[in-house]
Amino acid sequence: MGNLIYEGKAKRLYSTEIEDELIQEFKDDATAFNGLKKDKIAHKGELNNKITSIIFGHLINEGIPTHFIKRLSDTEMLVKRVNIIKAEVVCRNVAAGSLVKKLGFKEGTELDPPIIELYLKSDELGDPLFTDAHVLALGIATKEELEKIRALTLDINRILVRFFAGRGINLVDFKLEFGRDKDGSIILADEISPDTCRLWDAGTGKKLDKDRFRFDLGNVEEAYKEIMERVS
Amino acid sequence: MGNLIYEGKAKRLYSTEIEDELIQEFKDDATAFNGLKKDKIAHKGELNNKITSIIFGHLINEGIPTHFIKRLSDTEMLVKRVNIIKAEVVCRNVAAGSLVKKLGFKEGTELDPPIIELYLKSDELGDPLFTDAHVLALGIATKEELEKIRALTLDINRILVRFFAGRGINLVDFKLEFGRDKDGSIILADEISPDTCRLWDAGTGKKLDKDRFRFDLGNVEEAYKEIMERVS
Repeated sequence: MGNLIYEGKAKRLYSTEIEDELIQEFKDDATAFNGLKKDKIAHKGELNNKITSIIFGHLINEGIPTHFIKRLSDTEMLVKRVNIIKAEVVCRNVAAGSLVKKLGFKEGTELDPPIIELYLKSDELGDPLFTDAHVLALGIATKEELEKIRALTLDINRILVRFFAGRGINLVDFKLEFGRDKDGSIILADEISPDTCRLWDAGTGKKLDKDRFRFDLGNVEEAYKEIMERVS
Repeated sequence: MGNLIYEGKAKRLYSTEIEDELIQEFKDDATAFNGLKKDKIAHKGELNNKITSIIFGHLINEGIPTHFIKRLSDTEMLVKRVNIIKAEVVCRNVAAGSLVKKLGFKEGTELDPPIIELYLKSDELGDPLFTDAHVLALGIATKEELEKIRALTLDINRILVRFFAGRGINLVDFKLEFGRDKDGSIILADEISPDTCRLWDAGTGKKLDKDRFRFDLGNVEEAYKEIMERVS
């Protein structure tokens, strides 16, 4: 394994012998509420590595450009090196989370069209909601890049809503991160897992995602395993 | 005077004998940080009534549709009744306030183009920043109304930047509220005063606005009087 070049809350990135390729390792660490709540979830790293590999593989088959190259081991995948864009992209099909708490939406309200939000990627500032105008003024991305990111996010949403629906899961919302590859093209990076999505069982409404950890609903590992089994 | 139909933090609205006309009365009460800080500023009601009357008169001369009809007394003006749009509009020419505190902008950075932000008008939720997508999903305004509001805000900004510059004042940012008149047209409502603008002396950078109250800088009444004299 190469040198550790980045450590986030849930993943580490290592260099490899190839300049443009990195190893992305998934950790069992779980954090919520901007790091105020911290714990480990047994096997989370392994489960999220496998779930992300399956979902990114599916997205690639559907024509979405991503950083994913291949899964290497239980907790590691090989990815393309990107210059990450410091705006997290949230796409919402159903009102939940901050939409309910901060803006007064009724939980469970269907959102059609889906709502796309941008959050400044900054642990120090607590990942605040911001807008295209802020992104441009801060020089985080260009207008053309934002347009590309929005179009890709809507495409990814259409693909994943169908993917999860076929597995009895309602894709409530999810967070994406994009980066620039070596040619400067925008590609999907990071992960897509129960850490970064709200996934409700279509029949019962049972939450099968990180909200079980956030709100101490119990059976966190079981929920992640349930998602793993359904996407396999 | 008719019946009190609305009381906000800084103003009261009364009905009149004419269905479509209201009296807007300015109070001396000052609040900040979502009502956590409260006090009275001597003569503020009178000063803001006069400053708003002058500025709205100027905007009307420049072709901006507003709710202002005429000043009635020291603390009252006659206005058109509107159905207020529950999105406060902030226009920023220079980084200050929440842009610095929440998003890490450097105070004093010039913003070109100006940044327009929307805040949900809700005391209960603390007036959070939100976006066009939220406005549409909440049914607060239509896409066409938002476009009209943005265009009017940029026009108002151009007019006011010039107006204040001619009086030795740098218009850093300001908050607007819009409403629908009896025909459903979007018109400017509320007030424009040192309560709702950041106004810095062009020569010295001295703050001549509500930040003197927010941050206990002293000489609050004097600053409002200084603005009153310069705009007269």
